[in-house]
Amino acid sequence: MARDDGRSPDQLRPVTITRDWLTHAEGSVLVEFGGTRVLCAASVQDSVPRWRRGSGLGWITAEYAMLPRSTNTRSDRESVRGKIGGRTHEISRLIGRSLRACVDYKALGENSVVLDCDVLQADGGTRTAAITGAYVALADAIAWMRKRKMCPGDPLVNSVAAVSVGIVGATPLLDLCYTEDVAAETDMNVVMTGSGEFVEVQGTAEGIPFDRSTLDSLLDLAAAGCAELTVRQREALS
Amino acid sequence: MARDDGRSPDQLRPVTITRDWLTHAEGSVLVEFGGTRVLCAASVQDSVPRWRRGSGLGWITAEYAMLPRSTNTRSDRESVRGKIGGRTHEISRLIGRSLRACVDYKALGENSVVLDCDVLQADGGTRTAAITGAYVALADAIAWMRKRKMCPGDPLVNSVAAVSVGIVGATPLLDLCYTEDVAAETDMNVVMTGSGEFVEVQGTAEGIPFDRSTLDSLLDLAAAGCAELTVRQREALS
Amino acid sequence: MARDDGRSPDQLRPVTITRDWLTHAEGSVLVEFGGTRVLCAASVQDSVPRWRRGSGLGWITAEYAMLPRSTNTRSDRESVRGKIGGRTHEISRLIGRSLRACVDYKALGENSVVLDCDVLQADGGTRTAAITGAYVALADAIAWMRKRKMCPGDPLVNSVAAVSVGIVGATPLLDLCYTEDVAAETDMNVVMTGSGEFVEVQGTAEGIPFDRSTLDSLLDLAAAGCAELTVRQREALS
Amino acid sequence: MARDDGRSPDQLRPVTITRDWLTHAEGSVLVEFGGTRVLCAASVQDSVPRWRRGSGLGWITAEYAMLPRSTNTRSDRESVRGKIGGRTHEISRLIGRSLRACVDYKALGENSVVLDCDVLQADGGTRTAAITGAYVALADAIAWMRKRKMCPGDPLVNSVAAVSVGIVGATPLLDLCYTEDVAAETDMNVVMTGSGEFVEVQGTAEGIPFDRSTLDSLLDLAAAGCAELTVRQREALS
Amino acid sequence: MARDDGRSPDQLRPVTITRDWLTHAEGSVLVEFGGTRVLCAASVQDSVPRWRRGSGLGWITAEYAMLPRSTNTRSDRESVRGKIGGRTHEISRLIGRSLRACVDYKALGENSVVLDCDVLQADGGTRTAAITGAYVALADAIAWMRKRKMCPGDPLVNSVAAVSVGIVGATPLLDLCYTEDVAAETDMNVVMTGSGEFVEVQGTAEGIPFDRSTLDSLLDLAAAGCAELTVRQREALS
Amino acid sequence: MARDDGRSPDQLRPVTITRDWLTHAEGSVLVEFGGTRVLCAASVQDSVPRWRRGSGLGWITAEYAMLPRSTNTRSDRESVRGKIGGRTHEISRLIGRSLRACVDYKALGENSVVLDCDVLQADGGTRTAAITGAYVALADAIAWMRKRKMCPGDPLVNSVAAVSVGIVGATPLLDLCYTEDVAAETDMNVVMTGSGEFVEVQGTAEGIPFDRSTLDSLLDLAAAGCAELTVRQREALS
Repeated sequence: MARDDGRSPDQLRPVTITRDWLTHAEGSVLVEFGGTRVLCAASVQDSVPRWRRGSGLGWITAEYAMLPRSTNTRSDRESVRGKIGGRTHEISRLIGRSLRACVDYKALGENSVVLDCDVLQADGGTRTAAITGAYVALADAIAWMRKRKMCPGDPLVNSVAAVSVGIVGATPLLDLCYTEDVAAETDMNVVMTGSGEFVEVQGTAEGIPFDRSTLDSLLDLAAAGCAELTVRQREALS
Repeated sequence: MARDDGRSPDQLRPVTITRDWLTHAEGSVLVEFGGTRVLCAASVQDSVPRWRRGSGLGWITAEYAMLPRSTNTRSDRESVRGKIGGRTHEISRLIGRSLRACVDYKALGENSVVLDCDVLQADGGTRTAAITGAYVALADAIAWMRKRKMCPGDPLVNSVAAVSVGIVGATPLLDLCYTEDVAAETDMNVVMTGSGEFVEVQGTAEGIPFDRSTLDSLLDLAAAGCAELTVRQREALS
Repeated sequence: MARDDGRSPDQLRPVTITRDWLTHAEGSVLVEFGGTRVLCAASVQDSVPRWRRGSGLGWITAEYAMLPRSTNTRSDRESVRGKIGGRTHEISRLIGRSLRACVDYKALGENSVVLDCDVLQADGGTRTAAITGAYVALADAIAWMRKRKMCPGDPLVNSVAAVSVGIVGATPLLDLCYTEDVAAETDMNVVMTGSGEFVEVQGTAEGIPFDRSTLDSLLDLAAAGCAELTVRQREALS
Repeated sequence: MARDDGRSPDQLRPVTITRDWLTHAEGSVLVEFGGTRVLCAASVQDSVPRWRRGSGLGWITAEYAMLPRSTNTRSDRESVRGKIGGRTHEISRLIGRSLRACVDYKALGENSVVLDCDVLQADGGTRTAAITGAYVALADAIAWMRKRKMCPGDPLVNSVAAVSVGIVGATPLLDLCYTEDVAAETDMNVVMTGSGEFVEVQGTAEGIPFDRSTLDSLLDLAAAGCAELTVRQREALS
Repeated sequence: MARDDGRSPDQLRPVTITRDWLTHAEGSVLVEFGGTRVLCAASVQDSVPRWRRGSGLGWITAEYAMLPRSTNTRSDRESVRGKIGGRTHEISRLIGRSLRACVDYKALGENSVVLDCDVLQADGGTRTAAITGAYVALADAIAWMRKRKMCPGDPLVNSVAAVSVGIVGATPLLDLCYTEDVAAETDMNVVMTGSGEFVEVQGTAEGIPFDRSTLDSLLDLAAAGCAELTVRQREALS
Repeated sequence: MARDDGRSPDQLRPVTITRDWLTHAEGSVLVEFGGTRVLCAASVQDSVPRWRRGSGLGWITAEYAMLPRSTNTRSDRESVRGKIGGRTHEISRLIGRSLRACVDYKALGENSVVLDCDVLQADGGTRTAAITGAYVALADAIAWMRKRKMCPGDPLVNSVAAVSVGIVGATPLLDLCYTEDVAAETDMNVVMTGSGEFVEVQGTAEGIPFDRSTLDSLLDLAAAGCAELTVRQREALS
């Protein structure tokens, strides 16, 4: 099966990671996976949420949102509707959990980093691009903190990257663009550490349930994709 | 490792599925996984959401909620806070997707079924108990519709059941109760069809990322658990 | 006039009071007035609302809600609509006021009890069943506190029970079921103490205003009904 | 017991009913019960709520609110808090039910009247003043409609007035001002028709439950008070 | 061009400023600009918002709202809609900024005054009437505070008044009533101090952009109008 | 007085207008005024709001928002807080009004354009940059519509641009950056057409009221700045 953009099934879209895209944020990255463009800003706070005070431990949290015209047709703003939708909640929570997997709270001390991931343009894989970019913004924010001696140790114990995989017309594909995502029978988002372990696996049958061998082939594809993204992150940070 | 309640690692808690627990609902089930108790009500509507009108296709949706004192300490009501939390959103969406996997929309015709899953008492695995019970309530609701000749065909093309699995102290365990869930390094919820295929796989590293062989052992455990729950569902419905 | 369920005009529906229906709550009761089924959970908190701190006095509050499919046709969740309706507010306030009538705040000390009354199934008289059941849950919660020596004295100075009465087709009826409630010209909810005094009298003309003698006959009927419910509460607690 | 303002126990405060206080509304009244001042505006709409369309019947509804500084200390606006409190809901519903008792929906035709009762200054009895004033505004609005031949018949079949009564220091008092209301052991709001029948009776024990003879004496007092208010309404309208 | 009410282009509507319209508020004014009637209540608080604590400086804030039937057709309440509209926000902010221009925060000490401006009846110019009246209420509230020696100095360093001006049919008009406001090509609200300086200038082209000479003529007209309103304020306060 | 960035008092910051920054939107511009960076997306809709249907006229509306870390310290998202703040409302309304000044609704036909102005980075003048950039995005969207023959005529009858001016340390300055904005005694935003007329003039005394000659000098400065921005817009569009 030929992909619309000529990629092979196991090929990522062009990935660009632009650091320091913003002036104010302690870490900021414009990450692009093909036409998907996410602005990731890391904000350092020298405090933690109330429930964590006095623990000596830090905290990492994330918020995801899409600009109204990041998509093909305009969506209403969640601020105008007065509430956050289920999908937004779900992805914000996923990004937060994913990034917490690479951080040592004790070494962070009682500091927080908030990762704002705002989708400027969407073409599939916005959550995986967000995680991949937010890691780089987080690394920069932590470097910023360490330069100021805010942390008792080195909080960054690993890296994380994420990619989507799916079955389209019986073929397992890596890094789905929007039209592939819509056509996929099965859709999976996989978050992995730089050392090749799983942080999060979320697979959903869209219509047709999938068997174990399909699941295995998707996991293989995702592992290779995450490994490649880990290389890109390292290059960007070096 | 001995479990608190004496179960073997691959053993489900006692499962009870009580049909027709409510008088008004077209299908209703009180499902119990040990101390977890979820009331699942299926409400039939002879219409579909606006975006689906005129398509000839039906729709299945779900809402999950916890009573304030279903848990060990009382939580505020989401109605009082004026908004639904991220976790509630996420689980409602998961239940809806899971049940849609066993339904043929065309055979359902332009009808909807809403599955309300209200947790009366929580002891871990509320979302998997909800899915497992809601399937039975859905089956009853669809039987109710077919008796009234509301559906052009038989919409129930499969069954779905769900179970949690996790790694606690290096041991893979089936059907975690609350204390195990809190202690788990890795936590996975797996939804499968009665014919043994995956509908949803959601695995999360709580703290320590997991490798492929751990993932494999958890999937094995979950597959066996779902198969057993499928048997319980069939017994309840016969 | 024959009632649908064969009761005499001054007869209660079958009343069931099941204590300890929940594991976690300090007091919990499943109360049934015929087909009406309300789960009452009493949650103890060793603090009081901000405006009462430092007073040495305790507090009792209540929240009432209906599950979406407790009724004949499904209602939207108030959490989904993002706000609590007027009827819910009104009943929550009524339950709280009613239960505060049997409590000595000073003997309670600076502790609170929250009564959650969730209607699992509705067939008329949900608020009066809730008050009657919540009293028993409160008594259990207070016993729980006294065992732990949390209270400076015995806070339970009386009992409260409640019943609905109404005029249907010119006949005064006790404990209206849903179809009677809908048909009633006048509808009254009466809350009384175990010693036979009034805590709350709420009578409403639905359509036709009522005269003093009608009011008197309804109050007589309600007083007898509350006396009988008081006996059931004592039996349940003994 | 001497009352602060020198009234006898069965005496109303000075009552003023000023019609046409507003230019735009079809009926408008500034009603004063002593220091309590409520602006009642009746707005005619030539339609009914969705659930009543096609029935040939009209509808009456009411909204009650207090200006932030109508009270001794400033309260936050409900619009700023983003939600309506339980008390506001309860009183709005009470006013609507009370006024519906004097209207023939069929004679009204498919028209609505909205009664806005805004408390400009509060000194006890705001809800009873609101009902008493809103009736006059409603009568004016109905006259306005009849002049324009909007109604198939005469919708005004009765009048309604309301007054508060309560036990303060063992004495039953009519028409409580704020300091009396706060001191009352028992507080009752009674709504009656011009022909002397009850529309709504709401009695609450604040602290000490009350017996039947107390209830009877309060009802006597309220009946006399409502009769007097009915005279004032007739005078205002003539 | 003749104005509907016979005024000359540079003539204000009849202005009435009634002090002490409310009993509870520390300062209160019913201000009327023709048919526009705004109730302004000043509430003193012996504290400041959190962000200002410990600064030794006071604060002035304002809230504007319209009663639902202050206008020709009834509007929904913002409390019922659950949110404050853009226009309300904008005007509340304008009133607050305007009044802060005449106050010395240091002389006020760590006290606040909240100005509630509720439009009882609207006929154009509600925001300018509100500012003009709120100044008088503020002056009374500050006098109240000074009598109680709450302020370290005299916080009232100037006065403020406001008026609307606009171009209707090519003629610059002062103090537009509603029908003129709707017909205006250009609409400007001007807030000035008693000493003749500008606090706020807000001009908007409704339809046709305006040139510099038009702007100049409007500013002249507004300056004269504000000067006249300043006289009225002084008369009211003397 | 030397400005921090070396500009003369009447000099704009470097202005960049990048068209087609987004793929999906019918018009899109990344506009930069120095460090201020606003993404303006124009979305075409072939319908108008309900209140305008059947009129044959089109509509233009705008929404403004800031990314949480566009500013020096992170702000909470309005979607998370569940409501839109007063400042956001005010600016959204200003942008909409400004752009409507250059459009002929009749020539637009019953179509709408929504202008989303999202501040990616803020350094003063975000609203004026937004208006200036949104005009270019609107021009592109209208060209897109005209190519598809959606409009009965040419709706673009003029251009609009906006700039801020202010008094800092007694000197009138053009196009204030954030530090200047904070230091300004008087702050004015001026929106003008390409033909040199005023669309909106909003001047506010921050602290010290200003006199007529100050106002005049600020208007002169703004007129020159808008003229220069008009040239930049024309260059960008050619």
